[in-house]
Amino acid sequence: MSENRVLIEGSGRHIHLAQADLEALFGPGFELEVKKYLSQPGEFASNSKVDVVGPKGTIKGVSILGPTRPATQVELSYTDARILGLVCPLRESGNLAGSASCTLVGPAGSVDLAEGVIIAKRHIHLTPEDAVRFGVADKEIVLVKADGERGLIFDEVVCRVSPKYGTAMHIDYDEVNAAGLFGEVWGIVCKK
Amino acid sequence: MSENRVLIEGSGRHIHLAQADLEALFGPGFELEVKKYLSQPGEFASNSKVDVVGPKGTIKGVSILGPTRPATQVELSYTDARILGLVCPLRESGNLAGSASCTLVGPAGSVDLAEGVIIAKRHIHLTPEDAVRFGVADKEIVLVKADGERGLIFDEVVCRVSPKYGTAMHIDYDEVNAAGLFGEVWGIVCKK
Repeated sequence: MSENRVLIEGSGRHIHLAQADLEALFGPGFELEVKKYLSQPGEFASNSKVDVVGPKGTIKGVSILGPTRPATQVELSYTDARILGLVCPLRESGNLAGSASCTLVGPAGSVDLAEGVIIAKRHIHLTPEDAVRFGVADKEIVLVKADGERGLIFDEVVCRVSPKYGTAMHIDYDEVNAAGLFGEVWGIVCKK
Repeated sequence: MSENRVLIEGSGRHIHLAQADLEALFGPGFELEVKKYLSQPGEFASNSKVDVVGPKGTIKGVSILGPTRPATQVELSYTDARILGLVCPLRESGNLAGSASCTLVGPAGSVDLAEGVIIAKRHIHLTPEDAVRFGVADKEIVLVKADGERGLIFDEVVCRVSPKYGTAMHIDYDEVNAAGLFGEVWGIVCKK
């Protein structure tokens, strides 16, 4: 097995909520339930969903991930953004200033987000140990080669290193489909 | 300007119809009208659309390209295939044996296609002159580098050379979105 292989995970559209927005959507004191833990330690898919509304359309039943965060963030694909009629910037998670707006509609109320809607920049979460193993630094841009009948080499992949992370690459479903990456798939990390 | 640059065109979901299927959908003697000529000489987007129906959903108003062909062919993205509930093979145009089935619904009738639904393999149409200029042969697999904030290198790009073609690379909208290729975009063709 190659030393520089990384698991590639497809990340569907999802929402991280601030506690105040969670309660506005689901009611006072509401708490997210764990449906399934994800590859990043402590992060989970919840049983809760809301509708995302844009100027040209609605996407119903978008999954909320937990736990809550300081700022609400909606992560879409370009396919989703076109359905909603939104012009969304490509950003790293947490970089929300001036990003796109939308309305979230839950069972107990709705929230108008002035910003917080992004297309996630493709990235690799790395433990410090795996960053050493791969020979990459936090914020470094690398290439990742994904083989198959629709094989391609992703450029502009940002490495994010933290002891809080589990090592995995995250791409959205436009990227999953473009690369034909179905099932458990691994890429090869290459220095630029 | 680089000698090996190729125009990259996004190809939305579309249908090529056999004459018998065209008449079954739109009525006897029906002829497609030219809405807009495309990069391939003689090929055009028509004003006619039909609905594509699969076991799990319908996509309404899918464009029909002209002129008619010997066999009906429906070209979807993986995103579309998932909406319809179809398992579609990745194929070159015209290679339809054992491909997916669907139902087409037009204003005058419907057609059950036993096969003909594919995801198009990414490809470059080349004139013989441009094939010489790029140093590639018909059927050759090349890489195409597309720069930008979502830059990537497409592998598994098949070259198709014919004096009937105009030189252009065709990818579907999953691939357009994955590479962030909006507007007029050009790639660099690289030998493997």
